[in-house]
Amino acid sequence: MNSTRDIDALIDMMARLPGLGPRSARRAVLHMIRKRALLLTPLADLMQTVAATARECARCGNIGSTEICDICASGKRANGQVCVVEDVADLWAMERGQAFRGRYHVLGGTLSALDQVGPDALRIPQLVARVTEEEVTEVILALGATVDGQTTAHYIADQLDGQVTLTTLAQGVPIGGELDYLDDGTIGAALAARKSL
Amino acid sequence: MNSTRDIDALIDMMARLPGLGPRSARRAVLHMIRKRALLLTPLADLMQTVAATARECARCGNIGSTEICDICASGKRANGQVCVVEDVADLWAMERGQAFRGRYHVLGGTLSALDQVGPDALRIPQLVARVTEEEVTEVILALGATVDGQTTAHYIADQLDGQVTLTTLAQGVPIGGELDYLDDGTIGAALAARKSL
Repeated sequence: MNSTRDIDALIDMMARLPGLGPRSARRAVLHMIRKRALLLTPLADLMQTVAATARECARCGNIGSTEICDICASGKRANGQVCVVEDVADLWAMERGQAFRGRYHVLGGTLSALDQVGPDALRIPQLVARVTEEEVTEVILALGATVDGQTTAHYIADQLDGQVTLTTLAQGVPIGGELDYLDDGTIGAALAARKSL
Repeated sequence: MNSTRDIDALIDMMARLPGLGPRSARRAVLHMIRKRALLLTPLADLMQTVAATARECARCGNIGSTEICDICASGKRANGQVCVVEDVADLWAMERGQAFRGRYHVLGGTLSALDQVGPDALRIPQLVARVTEEEVTEVILALGATVDGQTTAHYIADQLDGQVTLTTLAQGVPIGGELDYLDDGTIGAALAARKSL
């Protein structure tokens, strides 16, 4: 019998998390065992709660613990704007920016011919339905500036053509960014979209 | 009521683990929620088990789930050698090396005048007691090549002087290491300890 079997299993499983490998998983597990009451037990409890309660919002695809998420349920955010994002992580990033006061629609990925991801796998039909049901006036496409992201944006634009105002996030120099470290494509896009002072 | 309160709390707590920050904690939590049955629930269960069962070996300070750890309990490892390490992480590193077949003694830190860590805080009296009780013939000091590590090694050597053979790990060029990237101190130590072919 190996008395460290559970600890080894915990390390193996922690090492599967993104951003952690075997070495950092070992470090994290030792740290947790040392801070058992402050870290290990509360983490286990929280994980169990989240595993039992976390669910996708039936309307937008955000993750929460209720059928309709807080953002969809809030009357303050019914301003007719819907921001379309790839992923819940992107929604969280937009929320941290505190610049957008409308609602979201999480696609759950991008169209991809290579990975055989079609529109029906992506909650695009639900988006089209929401636009008519919720009196949406503007759809903001906040998708990645990648080939798949742009393909998806074009497809959605085709589907919604004429029904709403369609916009996308501006491309340009990031705040705090130095020109020297920017790629040529971004510099070109920022120059083409230059504004008069 | 915020339906993401538990998720936010889980992210905050994950971000306290060494090697993780707010960004990687968010990524890890989203990943776990997506792989709920494969990752989140088993992790929560394992953490609960480890929180309930993990304990220090009463003899050597290793972490396991029994009063005496597997290494101390194994008759195969009673070869009279005791390897003194700072930390359980160091013990695990030695075990991964698969080169040492004796037993360990985990100090739980190093002597430090600045941090007011004295010998009694470090299981050094227990080490001295083990040397007489367990018919130890050789004590291998596998402590860090830092000022505190070397101070601790000297202190232990003083305590055990004349009772056992005392050795330390060799210093030199790491396997696979390139001279160009090594610091001057290591090159000097490796040159001073050069061996005839």
